[in-house]
Parts: sequence; structure tokens; C-alpha cells
Amino acid sequence: MSRLKTHLEPFAVRLRPHLKTAKSAEVARLVTDGQAGPLTVSTLREAEYFLEHGFSDLLYAVGIAPNKLEHVFDLRRRGAELSIVLDNIDMAGLVAAQCAERRDRLPVLIEIDVDDHRSGIKPQDPILAQVGRTLHEGGAMLAGVMAHAGSSYFSKGAVAFEDMAEQERSGAVAAAEALRGAGLPCPEVSVGSTPTALFSRDLAGVTEVRAGVFMFFDLVMVGIGACSLDDIAISVLASVVGHQPDKGWILIDAGWMAMSRDRGTARLSVDQGYGVVCDLGCNPIPDLIVIDANQEHGIIAHRSGTGPLPDLPIGTMVRILPNHACATAAQHDRYQVMNDGSIVSAIWPRIYGW
Amino acid sequence: MSRLKTHLEPFAVRLRPHLKTAKSAEVARLVTDGQAGPLTVSTLREAEYFLEHGFSDLLYAVGIAPNKLEHVFDLRRRGAELSIVLDNIDMAGLVAAQCAERRDRLPVLIEIDVDDHRSGIKPQDPILAQVGRTLHEGGAMLAGVMAHAGSSYFSKGAVAFEDMAEQERSGAVAAAEALRGAGLPCPEVSVGSTPTALFSRDLAGVTEVRAGVFMFFDLVMVGIGACSLDDIAISVLASVVGHQPDKGWILIDAGWMAMSRDRGTARLSVDQGYGVVCDLGCNPIPDLIVIDANQEHGIIAHRSGTGPLPDLPIGTMVRILPNHACATAAQHDRYQVMNDGSIVSAIWPRIYGW
Repeated sequence: MSRLKTHLEPFAVRLRPHLKTAKSAEVARLVTDGQAGPLTVSTLREAEYFLEHGFSDLLYAVGIAPNKLEHVFDLRRRGAELSIVLDNIDMAGLVAAQCAERRDRLPVLIEIDVDDHRSGIKPQDPILAQVGRTLHEGGAMLAGVMAHAGSSYFSKGAVAFEDMAEQERSGAVAAAEALRGAGLPCPEVSVGSTPTALFSRDLAGVTEVRAGVFMFFDLVMVGIGACSLDDIAISVLASVVGHQPDKGWILIDAGWMAMSRDRGTARLSVDQGYGVVCDLGCNPIPDLIVIDANQEHGIIAHRSGTGPLPDLPIGTMVRILPNHACATAAQHDRYQVMNDGSIVSAIWPRIYGW
Repeated sequence: MSRLKTHLEPFAVRLRPHLKTAKSAEVARLVTDGQAGPLTVSTLREAEYFLEHGFSDLLYAVGIAPNKLEHVFDLRRRGAELSIVLDNIDMAGLVAAQCAERRDRLPVLIEIDVDDHRSGIKPQDPILAQVGRTLHEGGAMLAGVMAHAGSSYFSKGAVAFEDMAEQERSGAVAAAEALRGAGLPCPEVSVGSTPTALFSRDLAGVTEVRAGVFMFFDLVMVGIGACSLDDIAISVLASVVGHQPDKGWILIDAGWMAMSRDRGTARLSVDQGYGVVCDLGCNPIPDLIVIDANQEHGIIAHRSGTGPLPDLPIGTMVRILPNHACATAAQHDRYQVMNDGSIVSAIWPRIYGW
């Protein structure tokens, strides 16, 4: 976490960490240095949970659905400084009308599409100002624009991340300028993803940066060059429960229920299967990966399928580094916190569901 | 569920439903017709939960790890008639010694490998009798053999399932006979997977059948010919939150966190993406699938990528049929139970974790 904070220090931007990966109040306290926010969340369940744990400055960064508005206003009545995002005129009209009716100037960021990745309005699209005007004149608070260059996960290496960060920044700033040019307010320009946040070289015009997976990192982030294997701060503990020497397999009691079905490294130059096998001290065992998984069984083998296997007797405990921290962490209801690589110093609960 | 029960009726076998998919006491009560078992479970957390809900006859069907034995004996002290499985001499020795020390004749089934799929001892392997003898003479109760033809999920069509069922049956029975031939007891012969249980034509020598995913079915089961789309009894409810008409996309608020990362149909002749899109009444919308997913966003498109899209305004609610019921259900903490396809008649909690 210090790496991202150090990187962002020279820029006059707020860090609004995304808790979609960790979903834990203890992790949130660490990453906010004990402050009560600001945080980004991916569900209203997270907003509710973090509010109950003293975090009130919250951005719910998934395009709002009509049937979630009641919950949003309820959280605000209970003290959350909760803001939302949307990217279309229908929702803008509905939100503005609800704000007027409830006399609550809910802050709304307009989502900007900077990389054709998912959702958002293009910076140059005339709809942008219409959405802004609908919100601003209708009863909501037009708080600014938000962009997420999700394509950065499909880039590779520092130069590509720098370019993607600039594309994200310039797109978001262009959208903000389009709103301001139409006589509308746009105080916030929020951008971010772990690779773009870590490799941005210029944040002119940006007011806040969001990132989530950097708290733990994972094999996809290693594979695209955003971090090294040593940076991964999360693993799944498992026991050896069987051997199939004819097949070159060692069976463990962690399958896809423990690792998730995420196979993010399958598309990268090094396919890590369902995860990299490490000893209890988190040192990778050379060329040993989880090559396949059933619900509660993992199959460990040499990366080549046929290479030599170390002697891991029944009951040996191993740690598996995951493809995707967000997906793997979501399969568990708590973290066992290790301070020196072997002793559990705390149990941190995490939440789940919507 | 009635289909499997009707199919098994002519055979003198016990059905021991696998609750790894449903993880719900209400579903367990339905599938056992209100009896307190027997059940199969995939984690000791499930064993604990079902015991607390009045189900005492439980088989934990994943090869036991040394560090789980204390929990097994504890559950038995608390009234569970819990049995376990193992497939190697080291665990057999350890289990037998623990049984003797604790004076608890824990029932153990030896796992048999009938299809090279995962774990187990081959029926003809001389290790089998050694493992049986170690258990029987060492203090455990040698309860029988257990086989799971997991390869059936990779078969397709009735004839292939019938063949796989016979392979599972004959392998398990051969293993039982090998144990009996060595002068050892083998009262139970437990087999099963949803496709083999549904398509078995002969169960001679089998005492019990296990199956789990048949309770809900899913798109993989449809794709391999084990059921039809109408049989799928589980879906994820989502709302339309955005449109990207230039890309042919409709965005919904259900991503891989709601659907799971399971892409089981990717290897089948019809790839259903992250799921088949249905209206609220569970009628599939022709050729509409979730082609991609981020954590909390799903991208709906025409199956071809470019075909026409129906008019689904912001806020429209849809239901998504999943690739894999076990994986998708695991992402949720409750079921909304529908009786007529639209009205929620009950909320059934489900469990999670280990």
C-alpha cells in the first residue's frame, strides 16, 4: 500500500481506495491510515457495512439501478456521505426527480467511457451535457465525472500502463471540461485502476484516484507486470490429502470453492492454472501449480504436466497464490493475518453478498 | 428431484443427496422428504450446519486431511453419525490410530478411482486391501467403498452417461469384492454423480447413490444432455443499468461476483458466456447471453456479438441462468424461493465457508 501512496504523493490528488477486493473494515482502516474514508465500494452492502464501521465518505462506483435508490437514500439518512454514478439520461431523470421529491441533493458522478471497456459516456458525446443538466437542474448534485480504464488489466508493462493512465486522465478531464463548457459544475474528476494508478505520470485536472487490488495484488497483476510475486499479500492455506503418482498429481483440499473459478492468467504468457504453490513461508515451490480444480479438490502438478514433484507427504500444508485477489478473497469469510509468514496474529472478518 | 427419485425407485439403493450445491437445510428437507438424512457434504462446515438442523447421518465425501480429524471426532461426540473417505495408507494409519486412541469406531469409506478423474485407489490395486486392513484392524470401522465418476461431466448424451454409470458401478463393485476377497468387510458401495445417477441402468451391488447438482441443474448439465433448459431451477436476478448501442451491449448489475467465474459451457458445443438471459418468468430471450462480466457488471449481447437486441430499458429486470449451479449459488447467502415464477414465497438462507 505504501508503494501507491508514495507514487501519488507528488500529485495533489485524494486517494479513494476501492474496498471491493478486501471488503474488510480492518483493511480499510490500514489503507486510510485510520481515517474514516474516503472509500470506494462496489455494492450497497459494502456501503452499509463500512458506514456501520465508521466510514461515512463513500462512492458506490457501479451504475445505479432504479431499485437501489431507496437503499441509497436510506444510507444517506443514516449518515453516509454516499455518492453514486450513472451514465444515461433515463437514470439521470429518475435520480433528479427522486432527489427533488426527497429534498436530498445526492451527489452524482457521471461515468465516462475512456477505453471502450464497459460502461460510461464518451467525453465528446453531446449526451454528456444533457445528463449533467438533467441532474444539475433537476435536484441532484452534479459532483463530477468518474472514469475507470479497465482495459489496463489487458495491457502489459510500464509503458502501456503509463499510456493507459494518460488516456484515462485525458478522457476524464476532457469530459469535465465539456461539462464546464456547458456551464455546469464539475468539481470532481475521479479516475483509477490499480495499473493506471501505480503508473500515472501526470494527474493534471484529476482530483481523486481509485484502486483496489493493489492492497493484495495477485498473479494477474504479476503477469501483466504491475507487481512482483513477492508483492502478493494473500494466499489460500491447504493440506495435501492424496497422491496419484502415475498421473504426476498431488491432491489438496482447496479446489475452486477456495480459489474461485477465476483463471485470469490463462490469457497471459505464463498460465498459472488455479494458482502458484508455495511453502508455508510463501516461497514458491519451483514450477508447482494447481493445474486443475474441482469444488473441494485441487490438483497440484509440475507446470509441464510431467516434471518432477517434490516430496509433499499427506498432511503437508501449502499456500496457494491466486490468479485474482478479488475473486479468491470473495470465497472466504475471514482473513488470517500473518505477521512473520507463519503465525496467525489476528482474524479479520470480511463481508459477502449484496 | 422427483425425476431422480423415480429413476432410482426400481433399484434397491439408498439416495444420499449431496448438499454441496444447495448448502441449505430447507433444500435438504425437501430432498429427503422431511427425513433427517442421509446426506453427503463437501465440507465439515456443512456437516456442522446440517447437524445443527437435525440431520445426523452424514458422509463427508472429500479425502480427509489430518488437521480435520479433531473436528470430525468432535462432530461425532455431538451426535453426528459422520463417516469420512480416504485413499491412502498414511491417512488410513493415522485415522485408525486416532480411532483406537479415542475409542470411536469412525466409519471410513475407501475412495475408488473408476475413471482417472481425480482421487482414489484403482479397484485392482493391491494397496486397496492394505488400506482396508489398516483401518479394519487398527480401530476404525471399514464401512465400504465410494466412487465418483467425475468424468461424466465431460461425457455427453444418454449412451455415454449409461456407459459411465456402468463403469462407476462395476469399478466400485470390483473394489468391494477385492476387499471381501481379502477377508475384509465392505457393507457399503456408494457411487454417484448427477449424470451417472440419472442414467444408470444397473445398480447391482450398489447400496447408495449420491448426486447434488440435479437439485437445481444448470447450463453445463443442459449442454451435456443431462437435462433441458426448463429443468434449471436457479437463476440470478439483475437490473439493466446501462446501454452501449454502438457495441451492441446492454449492461446489468450482475457480474462475476453474482454469477461466479465459472465458464463451464466454454468447452461445450454451445458457449453460453456467463449465462442465458431470461425474462422475469424464466423464459429465455432468444440468443441473448451474458457475453462478459466484471466484478459487478455483466455485459449482455446477442450470441453472435452483432445480432439485434430487444428493447430492455434501464431498470428492466432479467434472470440469468448459470453455467454451474454449485459455483453460482456459492456467491449468494440466500435463495429467494419462487412458486409461480414471479412472487417470492420464502427466503432460504444458505451457508458458506469451511
